[in-house]
Amino acid sequence: MADEEPAAKRRKALARLDSQAFVLSKSVYADTNGVPRSGDPPRVLHLGLTDGEIANRVVVVGHHSRAELLSSFLSPEGSEVFKLASDRGFLAYTGLYNDQRLSIVSIGMGLSMMDFFVREARAIVKGPMAIVRLGTCGCLQEWVKVGCVSVASAGSALVQRNYSHFDAPKAHAGSEPYLISDLCMPDAELTALVASSLQEALGAQKVVEGINITADSFYSSQGRADPAFTDENSVLIEKVLQRYPKAITMEMESFQLFHLARSSLPKGSIKAAAAVVNVANRPTGPQGLCCCCRCCILLL
Amino acid sequence: MADEEPAAKRRKALARLDSQAFVLSKSVYADTNGVPRSGDPPRVLHLGLTDGEIANRVVVVGHHSRAELLSSFLSPEGSEVFKLASDRGFLAYTGLYNDQRLSIVSIGMGLSMMDFFVREARAIVKGPMAIVRLGTCGCLQEWVKVGCVSVASAGSALVQRNYSHFDAPKAHAGSEPYLISDLCMPDAELTALVASSLQEALGAQKVVEGINITADSFYSSQGRADPAFTDENSVLIEKVLQRYPKAITMEMESFQLFHLARSSLPKGSIKAAAAVVNVANRPTGPQGLCCCCRCCILLL
Repeated sequence: MADEEPAAKRRKALARLDSQAFVLSKSVYADTNGVPRSGDPPRVLHLGLTDGEIANRVVVVGHHSRAELLSSFLSPEGSEVFKLASDRGFLAYTGLYNDQRLSIVSIGMGLSMMDFFVREARAIVKGPMAIVRLGTCGCLQEWVKVGCVSVASAGSALVQRNYSHFDAPKAHAGSEPYLISDLCMPDAELTALVASSLQEALGAQKVVEGINITADSFYSSQGRADPAFTDENSVLIEKVLQRYPKAITMEMESFQLFHLARSSLPKGSIKAAAAVVNVANRPTGPQGLCCCCRCCILLL
Repeated sequence: MADEEPAAKRRKALARLDSQAFVLSKSVYADTNGVPRSGDPPRVLHLGLTDGEIANRVVVVGHHSRAELLSSFLSPEGSEVFKLASDRGFLAYTGLYNDQRLSIVSIGMGLSMMDFFVREARAIVKGPMAIVRLGTCGCLQEWVKVGCVSVASAGSALVQRNYSHFDAPKAHAGSEPYLISDLCMPDAELTALVASSLQEALGAQKVVEGINITADSFYSSQGRADPAFTDENSVLIEKVLQRYPKAITMEMESFQLFHLARSSLPKGSIKAAAAVVNVANRPTGPQGLCCCCRCCILLL
């Protein structure tokens, strides 16, 4: 009986797979060594979208419920606002806002997810793009209040764990445990528009401008203490602030957005900006707002 | 009317938020500078899990439908198999397999998502952990067939985009566009068990062992050509294979799992191994299986 049960389950699962036509339709994809697509119409693999399903203007957020909330401000182009949740964790809405076609896309967390989004979005949108990230962050300056919105007007720097420092300490003796990059700049015009629109909507006192820090972990490379891992990060925030005294926010995606926009071809064809709701104040301590807080409501 | 409509939508969205008690319950979290938790019981922020909800033995996959499929082989501990989908993209199942408590967790894609998983899982599990990644990959050797399973017995190396090379080419003249790390090794004993179990289940000809490559992008650092971005990656795969002729697979998470397991404290308290289903052959071209293919079924 104990032996039969897994076999029966396996047969059942196989039968379920066979009955799912979509599995077969997705089982082959084209352009393995480029930007692969599958299906008819051909959809990019991870966003699950095809040509025209997202707009040239995009607001990217980290969180499905925030995307859903923001999508409630869109008017439909046809009978309803376009919505597609991919099976790889992306959720896209497209509709009209102030008569302009606009997409709101939830992309999850981390450098890789921003990379998936920018590259696959670029593959299915014709013409210039404007991408604004509306994220959440921990803030690095005591004077910046939780609930304020920070605009990365002065650029973003990347903090990465230096894996070699930990994995081969002898070979990499004297190396730093974390690498802090130069600044990568957003599009100045789009950023100024984002900042002035936020100031108009929220009041100047609710909007802060400065440098953003993007980290490749929520934990080690953001200086959080975790006794379960060797992290050598007790002075990391201090080092970041020594190099960038105007650093106000720490999150996980903006640098990648700016970097890819600057790497886009033709040059300047993607313009990027980023604003983040400060949900926790790292210097003052233990409390924060949730990632889906009321502040988001104030941004439109 | 055009002015009233957004205001009405905003009021409606605010009212909906206010009616959602969970938003308030999640609005404050403890330990901003450690491993934060929120709610009662206190749940880690991104996995959404609390103490004991996942097992010491975990299989991590990238994809919700693969996790669901594998969970069908679990028996419940109580009335049903434990299941929790977090609002940050993770999906966890816990139950019994062969009388052992086992969790299957879908973690999405990329180095950051593996980092979230390992660190937050460690925070809610007592005692030693064994984590096996069961992923999908593109394979780098023509002789490795699509549908085979590759075990990273000989370790994993990380390929990272060297952002500075692109952002500040003058300051970083002569630098490489991609950085290729040393090998990081999995746990030898757990890896040998994974390999022998796979050989027993699938037949030796279906199982390949060698070096894995983890890349920080599905695109640029995996050598895929995309005319929409400056990537300088046309000889990247060649360079990777020059350094690691035994590299057989390329994916996005295994290196991070091995690295964090090796960084865990007390030393050796997390043991890690990785196996990947080859869903595309990069040298031979354009076809591949889907990420949720029948091969997964064969693995249990």
